[in-house]
Amino acid sequence: MTDDPAAWLAERARAYRYEVTQVPLGELPRWHLGDDLAHDTRRFFTIEGIAVETNFGRVPRWTQPIINQPEIGILGFLYKRIAGVPHLLAQAKMEPGNRVMVQLSPTVQATPSNYTRVHGGRATPFLERFLGDTRGRVLVDLLQSEQGSRYLRKRNRNMIVEVKGDEELALDAEFRWLSLHELRALLASGRKLNMNARTVLSCLPYDPTSEPPARDAFREAVVTSHLAADDDELARTLSWLADRKTELAIDVRRIKLGELDQWICDRDSIRHASGNFFRVIGVEVTAAEGREIAAWKQPMFAPVHPGTIAFVCQRRAGRLEFLVQARAEPGFIDRVELGATLQVSPANYARREDMPPFAELLACPPEWVRFRAEQSDDGGRFYHDDALHLVIEVPENEPIVAPPTFRWVTLGILRRLMRCGYLVDIEARSLLTCLS
Amino acid sequence: MTDDPAAWLAERARAYRYEVTQVPLGELPRWHLGDDLAHDTRRFFTIEGIAVETNFGRVPRWTQPIINQPEIGILGFLYKRIAGVPHLLAQAKMEPGNRVMVQLSPTVQATPSNYTRVHGGRATPFLERFLGDTRGRVLVDLLQSEQGSRYLRKRNRNMIVEVKGDEELALDAEFRWLSLHELRALLASGRKLNMNARTVLSCLPYDPTSEPPARDAFREAVVTSHLAADDDELARTLSWLADRKTELAIDVRRIKLGELDQWICDRDSIRHASGNFFRVIGVEVTAAEGREIAAWKQPMFAPVHPGTIAFVCQRRAGRLEFLVQARAEPGFIDRVELGATLQVSPANYARREDMPPFAELLACPPEWVRFRAEQSDDGGRFYHDDALHLVIEVPENEPIVAPPTFRWVTLGILRRLMRCGYLVDIEARSLLTCLS
Repeated sequence: MTDDPAAWLAERARAYRYEVTQVPLGELPRWHLGDDLAHDTRRFFTIEGIAVETNFGRVPRWTQPIINQPEIGILGFLYKRIAGVPHLLAQAKMEPGNRVMVQLSPTVQATPSNYTRVHGGRATPFLERFLGDTRGRVLVDLLQSEQGSRYLRKRNRNMIVEVKGDEELALDAEFRWLSLHELRALLASGRKLNMNARTVLSCLPYDPTSEPPARDAFREAVVTSHLAADDDELARTLSWLADRKTELAIDVRRIKLGELDQWICDRDSIRHASGNFFRVIGVEVTAAEGREIAAWKQPMFAPVHPGTIAFVCQRRAGRLEFLVQARAEPGFIDRVELGATLQVSPANYARREDMPPFAELLACPPEWVRFRAEQSDDGGRFYHDDALHLVIEVPENEPIVAPPTFRWVTLGILRRLMRCGYLVDIEARSLLTCLS
Repeated sequence: MTDDPAAWLAERARAYRYEVTQVPLGELPRWHLGDDLAHDTRRFFTIEGIAVETNFGRVPRWTQPIINQPEIGILGFLYKRIAGVPHLLAQAKMEPGNRVMVQLSPTVQATPSNYTRVHGGRATPFLERFLGDTRGRVLVDLLQSEQGSRYLRKRNRNMIVEVKGDEELALDAEFRWLSLHELRALLASGRKLNMNARTVLSCLPYDPTSEPPARDAFREAVVTSHLAADDDELARTLSWLADRKTELAIDVRRIKLGELDQWICDRDSIRHASGNFFRVIGVEVTAAEGREIAAWKQPMFAPVHPGTIAFVCQRRAGRLEFLVQARAEPGFIDRVELGATLQVSPANYARREDMPPFAELLACPPEWVRFRAEQSDDGGRFYHDDALHLVIEVPENEPIVAPPTFRWVTLGILRRLMRCGYLVDIEARSLLTCLS
């Protein structure tokens, strides 16, 4: 085994043989396209239609397909201090939707259907440390939302559970303890930590003592911003968010796929008449590792155009603050969550003036960019869905006028908000992990 | 003006003249019974159908009418220390559904439709202290769920806003500053504080220094139970609740009223074929105060049988703990919240063995009862819906076996859970206020 985590991950990727090809939806055995697209067991997930009416954004009403997956999965990292340094147990895992198919996932990612093994299959390693009487010491256990534009009220359980420092776990080849420092380096190069790993890591309480010395003024400002989180400002931010929830209206009604407007549903795929947004496609997967071979077909969501998510930050009154927006999405548990400054697929917009606020900052001077890497979305449901993750620091002397649905917050406030669940969306959490 | 708050409230009640009569649904002008029951402006609220499938409780699937009222209302008390003693500004308010029609409400109860005055009407007094730039110092600002069996994902904003001690407010006759002690005495006699007042008061941070000296061993144990709220126990309780959310499944689908099964929808009312549960009826209201006269007709939910909600508590390892249950209700924001030990309308059950756990404690020895008073539900939507509120202390030597969906918690833990919103249901909050 190599010492370099990136080399180890590359080695793990070579241990897998896999082939993923697109197939027509009509060729998915046991999946039926009717009022919804469902497996004949009606397990896993279904793809349904929703009709949305809202006063948020520029489009007052639309219909779209959405994934209904009511099960709450566990996304869990084991945590251990090795020689005093926090380490997390990562798993090299193949997910068929990702362009870079083998990435690091949490120690465990499993739904109740997986772990009660209703479908057969092998036991999930380390699951017992997250469940029932054998559960270890819990550092994090938070329900957090998933993509509100793709999933109908889906949430997962983000967990970090401690293993005692003197306890040695027997590890299969796909598992490895990595320090936060090593994880950070992998994040910076992009497409090496999967979305589940990023969302769980975002929930890890910030511990300045486990940080390496700041390498530059920006890293130093990030540390200070993490420590700025007073009770009064938190209360004001929650009141501001309640104001936004009160103003924003969104009505979501589940409809039949046949009632979708402007969407074409046929044996090939489900796609928008404009050619934009995303398509629901079929994929055929064959994966082999050693002597184990698995083959299956399933539907996936494939974005038509690549997306970008960006945090805009600025030093304000001496401290680094981040511009978040109160976003309404049809699949959110409670309609509005805090999102990144910008979340956009520019090619979906015919006219520049329809683009969301701050889209012009995508063309900012390169010296403003503090983080830039592509990261993959959930490769179990989304096909070739890599989003550019950007953190842009706008110089102090550049005025930024934020609309009322936007607010400047410190990282400390953002982290305290996350402790409640359903307040900070998954894209913002993914960016937050890239920052920390 | 009399000094005794109960006498003042009775005097206020005499200042109103009102008449409330039941009328057939078909005689409500501008309300239309079709796929739903809606006002022709489609404002206010609609009554729709839902189809529920769940693994919670004894009934795996049913349909029912439910109220869809997406607006988030403000329920707000002004707060002021008078001679060092916390006081809240209560309003004597008529609500047509209540048997005792004039009760104390928060200073403000208003929806955005009210306060933006889209229907005309007079301005809401003190509203500006809860909104925008004129908002006072916020002590409480929490979104909390409403009745999950009657409302589809409804929540209100529970607010307490401070007025500076030296600021004198001009008060109309229906307003009065009342100390916590005075409010408590009114609560004990029943049907004097409305549901909105009770839910907001439940969110007031517990301040042992503002408590009168404990009058007896039970009050003393309540104070101690409030102070027991350590971080580890909170984390364990949240993990337990996440376990319950993971196990419990509930699917809620909005359907047309005509698709309701076992429910009769006609010009008279919407009612269950068994004669049980509740009816949707029409009411005609005429109310006069001084020279102002208002008259309107609206639908309301009328329970067929009266309900009881009860907390069971017990001294365990020397401290007073309360038995809460993880309840799934179709209208909850996130499927499961903590509810009181028992929430039941016994007459809905044909057989004693179908009753929920702990129903037998309703026949407990009278010396176990620590609180007993009838309290009214929201008299703006519910007709003659008074629920008996009970707190029962089971002696230490009586063993209680709690099913896995139940858990013993201290009042301190329950209050910390409430700070997140959507974790403690409205019936439990109402009981908590009666206790404190």
